[in-house]
Amino acid sequence: MRSTLVINAFTEFTPSHTLQGMWRVPDAVEHRALNSMDSWLDLARIAERGCLDTIMFADAIGLGGDFDANVREGILIQNDPTSLIPAMATVTENLGFVVTGSILQDHPFQLARRMSTLDHLTKGRIGWNVVTSYSDEAWKNFGQPGVPSHADRYAWADEYMEVVYKLWEGSWDDQAIVHDRETGVWADPAHVRQIDHVGTRYQVTGPHMVEPSPQRSPVIFQAGSSEAGRTFAATHGEATFINSADPKSAKTLIDDIRARAVSAGRKPDDLYFTQAFTFIVGSTEEEANRKADEMFSYLNIEGMASKLSGYVGMDLTKLDPSVPLSEWTKPGITGIFDAILAAFPPGYNPTLAEIVEVRSKNGLFIGTPEQIADQLQDWQHAGLTAINVLIPTRNSSLVDFVDFVIPELQRRGISQREYTPGTLRRKLHGSGDRLPSNHIGASYRKAPLLHP
Amino acid sequence: MRSTLVINAFTEFTPSHTLQGMWRVPDAVEHRALNSMDSWLDLARIAERGCLDTIMFADAIGLGGDFDANVREGILIQNDPTSLIPAMATVTENLGFVVTGSILQDHPFQLARRMSTLDHLTKGRIGWNVVTSYSDEAWKNFGQPGVPSHADRYAWADEYMEVVYKLWEGSWDDQAIVHDRETGVWADPAHVRQIDHVGTRYQVTGPHMVEPSPQRSPVIFQAGSSEAGRTFAATHGEATFINSADPKSAKTLIDDIRARAVSAGRKPDDLYFTQAFTFIVGSTEEEANRKADEMFSYLNIEGMASKLSGYVGMDLTKLDPSVPLSEWTKPGITGIFDAILAAFPPGYNPTLAEIVEVRSKNGLFIGTPEQIADQLQDWQHAGLTAINVLIPTRNSSLVDFVDFVIPELQRRGISQREYTPGTLRRKLHGSGDRLPSNHIGASYRKAPLLHP
Repeated sequence: MRSTLVINAFTEFTPSHTLQGMWRVPDAVEHRALNSMDSWLDLARIAERGCLDTIMFADAIGLGGDFDANVREGILIQNDPTSLIPAMATVTENLGFVVTGSILQDHPFQLARRMSTLDHLTKGRIGWNVVTSYSDEAWKNFGQPGVPSHADRYAWADEYMEVVYKLWEGSWDDQAIVHDRETGVWADPAHVRQIDHVGTRYQVTGPHMVEPSPQRSPVIFQAGSSEAGRTFAATHGEATFINSADPKSAKTLIDDIRARAVSAGRKPDDLYFTQAFTFIVGSTEEEANRKADEMFSYLNIEGMASKLSGYVGMDLTKLDPSVPLSEWTKPGITGIFDAILAAFPPGYNPTLAEIVEVRSKNGLFIGTPEQIADQLQDWQHAGLTAINVLIPTRNSSLVDFVDFVIPELQRRGISQREYTPGTLRRKLHGSGDRLPSNHIGASYRKAPLLHP
Repeated sequence: MRSTLVINAFTEFTPSHTLQGMWRVPDAVEHRALNSMDSWLDLARIAERGCLDTIMFADAIGLGGDFDANVREGILIQNDPTSLIPAMATVTENLGFVVTGSILQDHPFQLARRMSTLDHLTKGRIGWNVVTSYSDEAWKNFGQPGVPSHADRYAWADEYMEVVYKLWEGSWDDQAIVHDRETGVWADPAHVRQIDHVGTRYQVTGPHMVEPSPQRSPVIFQAGSSEAGRTFAATHGEATFINSADPKSAKTLIDDIRARAVSAGRKPDDLYFTQAFTFIVGSTEEEANRKADEMFSYLNIEGMASKLSGYVGMDLTKLDPSVPLSEWTKPGITGIFDAILAAFPPGYNPTLAEIVEVRSKNGLFIGTPEQIADQLQDWQHAGLTAINVLIPTRNSSLVDFVDFVIPELQRRGISQREYTPGTLRRKLHGSGDRLPSNHIGASYRKAPLLHP
């Protein structure tokens, strides 16, 4: 594991990611460039200029909350993020690309094929953020009556992972690759095999239809801090998202998942822990506050409430004031819900305005580059090894971060000054291109790797 | 409909498309560049230099034939073609991209999202070749016991089309788009709606998560000349593939599908008919023949037999000489099977070598640009309005076609000298960007288009 923080630019192919209303800020480009490739290519170039590790795309395939509010704010618009990556790869050399993919949206045979192709075309710069879709609306777009329990979703996810590991790790040995024009042998059938998976939900004959890509399995990211989510992260994740209210609670969660990883036969450092932050930077604290005040004057409370309702799986606009928030069921994103709860005294029942206020300030750093670096070091000391840099106004927020904060982080040795050559996995973990031998995915291999 | 032929460069993201063994020809790049973006970007530039209409990608998600032969020849390798398009779009301005997508491989909600995103990012240059997957092996990769009948596959396809039309045409009115930074309204909820599809196979709530792209529905291509396939083409297709042995049989098929289109309330010219050809060009006939001889010296008979077995759905390597070929069942690609049958006298039972010979000469034109243009005019007189130019050796075959054949076609007015501005649909059909009002997809609209 690196001593420098892994830094991901964190965005979504939508007008309205985490801070609703920001597309109205004068220097944001969404209203004219959401669907234009050029502005996304610029974003990739900016990220690589700052030696950031990846651009990571959040995604959704259905959203709760208030339909009308969602449409008015553009929250319901979720273009396919994988369609940006091939083009972004042509204007960068080192930047990684992490794409969120739900077990619900793609059949594992097809997901495996797409990921392997992207990994080939980017020369091994692909990560996959495995999610299980938390909203009823997503499941109803794919023929299901609603969202299953965490446990059921993760049982599904476990089989899904089994299928893709069989395809990525088990179907082709390294020794299969021949590509010999003299003998006319493209590949050696003695080293390619069907997977013949027969499971609860999937039956897949195979073989995998893409020959081994530089990383084979993409770097596995995961989000979800429910009980089942933590176990999944500890088993499969090479990086996991957390959403903690402060460094202290982050440490508790990180220590817990690390212990689970060790129980699964892995090393505590085999996983990165990343949390999303919004940075508003000024050369003085006053300037930063002024910028923040201007940005937040565009905050769309209705949109914030609607998006948050979707996240936590309950309609916050219809809160019953007689029931304390802590007693609500929470089928949605546990981490976000917990972070809100933690902001209020036990038993206190906040108003919607108070909840939105807490949400909009979640992970928000306003200040000079030095102040921001100080705060990041506090998180780093608590065990955080990666950060996701949110981009409330595209692309200007990332320009600010790269041009003002990154130099200070580099000066302190918190962020890298240059890229490690090679695949994303090598850049992150320093060693091989492929899953380490203690990772569950490696157990599906049939022959030793030629270049482990 | 244009007076000039629509010309598509026809390829597949595999080492071995229609003529097995050609990856060994000295100027082919597959063995070192199959997975490299650069060679594909070059292909797009070459196609646009020749004013070709599209690059069209064949695809497969499972393949029959002989497993070992498939692996040795690279036939089993089928990378995801959609991953090339965003990058190819950044190096071209007018070239269209047609991607083959089976109803089996993507859920319609997800396919609709991907196609709409690609259509946005390419400014309306996307076509979709709807296929229903002819091989047992494909269906077994997606949890099915084997390939259903033509009728069942097309019934499935009809519901699939209903879902995607509801998403593309019915979920968002043009009037929904606001994008107003003053009022803070991204879109108008009075003009966005769920689709609430409840069908035999799919239940999809919606709404579509991508706002209307330039074409909304991509240009619909279709392949399949079975009874059910012809009806599907006549109903949905804006272009359809045929695979006829000669202009005369092409005319019969074209007339039949045109009549069906008219029965479906469309005009005979609402569909293009396209057939794939391989062109080997020389400045003299002798030079062309010499080139052809050299290329065919690399023909891999074992690979040809295996790939063809997959296409026609029966193992040609295990032919029973006592049963005439005409009595075999033909669950695979009817057109290819029929083209083989037509090459032999009725009741004759050809050897495997004879079958491979016929297959490898199917649609093969060897000659000078003038001879090739003469032959194409014969096909054009029979009603063919488009051609698919196969690329046996990438990228050199397409360079030859673009640099030597295209000028002759342009001189005769058979191919276009410049692009019509605008979307792929406008380039092909001369009028609107969106499906015409007599097309079945248009019946799913809820509000009139602002720019029909």
